[in-house]
Parts: sequence; structure tokens; C-alpha cells
Amino acid sequence: MRYKIIFSYDGTNFNGYQIQPNLRTVQKELQKAVSYLNQQTDTSVQSSGRTDKGVHALGQVAHFDLDVEISIEKIKRGLNSNLPKDIHIICVKKVSKNFHARFKAKKKEYTYKINIGEYDPLERNYIYQYNRPLDVAKMKEAIKYFEGTHDFTSFVSSEDIRENKVRTIFKTNIQKKNNIIEINFQSDGFMKYQVRNMVGLLIYIGCGKKEASDVQKMLTAKDRTQSVKTAPPEGLYLKKVWY
Amino acid sequence: MRYKIIFSYDGTNFNGYQIQPNLRTVQKELQKAVSYLNQQTDTSVQSSGRTDKGVHALGQVAHFDLDVEISIEKIKRGLNSNLPKDIHIICVKKVSKNFHARFKAKKKEYTYKINIGEYDPLERNYIYQYNRPLDVAKMKEAIKYFEGTHDFTSFVSSEDIRENKVRTIFKTNIQKKNNIIEINFQSDGFMKYQVRNMVGLLIYIGCGKKEASDVQKMLTAKDRTQSVKTAPPEGLYLKKVWY
Repeated sequence: MRYKIIFSYDGTNFNGYQIQPNLRTVQKELQKAVSYLNQQTDTSVQSSGRTDKGVHALGQVAHFDLDVEISIEKIKRGLNSNLPKDIHIICVKKVSKNFHARFKAKKKEYTYKINIGEYDPLERNYIYQYNRPLDVAKMKEAIKYFEGTHDFTSFVSSEDIRENKVRTIFKTNIQKKNNIIEINFQSDGFMKYQVRNMVGLLIYIGCGKKEASDVQKMLTAKDRTQSVKTAPPEGLYLKKVWY
Repeated sequence: MRYKIIFSYDGTNFNGYQIQPNLRTVQKELQKAVSYLNQQTDTSVQSSGRTDKGVHALGQVAHFDLDVEISIEKIKRGLNSNLPKDIHIICVKKVSKNFHARFKAKKKEYTYKINIGEYDPLERNYIYQYNRPLDVAKMKEAIKYFEGTHDFTSFVSSEDIRENKVRTIFKTNIQKKNNIIEINFQSDGFMKYQVRNMVGLLIYIGCGKKEASDVQKMLTAKDRTQSVKTAPPEGLYLKKVWY
């Protein structure tokens, strides 16, 4: 039996999603809880993709197979009672063996939050504090250049060794409410550091160090070394995955 | 020279406001930063009142005396750069020697937040998660009994040894937005655990274990042992202090 889960986590105290020896990761905690449920048999959990250290998820998706049939209510309750407080299973669904959280993902949405107002200690792990003004109109103009199908080499971590760095960004959005700027991207897929590098450039544009048209130039350059400062992880949220 | 500060803090990793040996407290961190600014002379910081372990502040107020005159901009910058990330000075004002953060406080506002919807791991330290429905209309009816001048003995921690437990609650409010319930109290002063005990009773009323009129009964009883479960600290915020 294959099950799909939608879950959220606070990335602050995790060394990212992916399992690593001797480090606290989301995948490790999930696999521990799922394996316990699956008659204490080691069970792997496959997510829609990794998130980096400090990055949060509001609607991450994963799948796993259980050898026993358990009601979805019991799975939700069982997992949540065995998971640490910074991970939460929102819903569980029985799916066919064809479902695959990574390979069947059609679209993902990420949100990045920036505070340009007074620093809030309660939000220190959940928003990027930026202590200078940002020209949101310019950032709105700039983000449009990201829409469409592009080679994102200039915005991808050099650690990312995938050959094909072409992705399609379906939709972007920036909104400012009081002193909080929220930046949204919907794409068929994102690569390592891609959102944080795109946001890094948008911040440079917002503060006047770069022009809106530099997005186009950097996309064309296909050169990671041209890139600007990667925005920090605490402002980033994996919001939703579509199948 | 006396200075008044308005500051916020995330209570999660503090053992409350008040200084205690070998424990991390807000007052200790503040005094360290203020003393450093005051030519490394031990300087005491007097707040409007304590908050308990895990309780947050959005607009706590304190005062201190400096032997040297420093511009308020420099004080703000200097303190914030010497304070840990979970405390933040919002504003600094020069005040007369008559000003006293505790004795001159006229009114205080506390807010308590309850989530009756899906658990959110990112909010686990900032909201009380309550997994059963609450009848907000009943709670709104009940909270009105707290308004006015009463002896709050039934709602005060037995640790609080002040003789006079009469306080005046000027204003109360409950609002529900999506699945978040926010409960507000404005009073001339609050005693230890008072807000959390009042909220504890309101929760009992909201879930049907008590009646709205039981507020009146408990106020009249003046008996701490009659009280209900104290609501946990993570939902509580000291919002504002008036002078």
C-alpha cells in the first residue's frame, strides 16, 4: 500500500530535509516515525525534493509504502505522535503504486519573506530581516523576466551537477503588506539555491545595486560566478506541490 | 540621565524576565548590555513587571540610568548590537528622574492566542494549540464578567504573596479569525498567572466544562484552589504598557 502525505516543518533546527549521517534531518525523523508504524521495518520516505538547512515547508509532499493496511486517520495520528514538534503531518491519502512524490510533481510553489520594518525577535527564524528600504515597484518589474522557460545556470548552486538547468517559471508574484514583502514563484521545478539566488538578485535590484533588466542579462550569461548574494534560508518556504 | 526603553522578546528560550542565578533571563541580558554601554558599570534595569518563562513581550517597558549622556539613536543601536537575537529594543526615550517603569505604569495589555485549527509547527512556541472546538460566543459572554474592579484571589498563583489582590480590568476582547482565537485584557495591573488562569477558565467555558456565570462565582469565592487549569505560557504576550 502506498501513501501520500502532505506535511509542514520548521526548518530552523534541521540540517535540511535530506538524510545525512549523525545530523538531525527531516527525512530521518520521518523515516523513523514511518518505520515504527510499519511494524518496525526500515521504510524509506521519498519527498518531492530536498529543502536546505533552515528552509521551512508549509505543504511538502512525500510517499512511502506500508506492508500493512492502516486507516489514514490512524496513520496521521500515529505519525504525529511519533514525530518531533517541528514536523507535522497535515494529511494522509492512499495512492496507487504509480504515484511518486518526486517524479510525478508537476508544479511547485515557493514563497520568500522579507521584513523591511522594525526587527521582530519572534520572527527571527521565519523572515529575512533587511534593514534598508527596497523599491518594490522595481522588484515587481524585474521578477517578470524570470517568467517563462529559461536556462537557470546563473542562479543554481555550483554543487548542483544536473546537466539540464532549463526550467519553466509559470507564475511570479510580489506583494507588500505593511513592511513585509512576500515573493512567490511557481515552477515545474527548482534547483539548489535557485529561489534564494533569484531573491538575492531581486534584493540587489530593490536597493539599486542592479537594474531590472539585469535579470535578463544574468539569465543569458549562464554563468554562476556572475551571481549576487544568496538570500538567507530563514525567509524561504516550500508552500505547495501539485501533481 | 534616565532612559525609558520599549522592547520585545521571544520568551521561548528565557527562564522568564526576572534575573535568577545561573539562568538565562531577559533582565540579565538587558543589564549586561546596558552596563556595557554605561562605561562597563553594573547598571540595573527596572521593567514594568515580570513575565513568566515562555511568555513573550511585544511592548515591554523598562528604565535605567546612565552616568554618561548618549544620544537615543546610539543607545538603541548599541543595545541591539549587544543583545541576543531574541530581544529587541524598539525605541529609547529620555525621561525625567520621576519616571519609573513599574510604579508609574497606569495600564497594561496582554493578549493570549489559541489555535483551534490544524497544528502549525512554525507557531509551536507562539500559540497555544487546542485540539477541540471552542464556543467563542460563550467565551465572549463570559469574559465580560472579568471587567470592572474585582478581587482576583481565585486567579492568582499561590506564590503571589501581595496582600491586595484587587485589580480593575478596563477592557476585554475576544476575536476569532480563521482558527485563531485572540483574547485581550487591559488592566491597571496583573498578578502572577492571572491572565493564564483567566484564560484557563475561559477555555473550560468554551469547551462546555463550565458556564459563563462561573466567572462571577469564582471571583466571589476568592479561593485559588477552586481554579481551573492554567493556560500554557507560549500563547501569552505582554502587548503594551501605558504611563
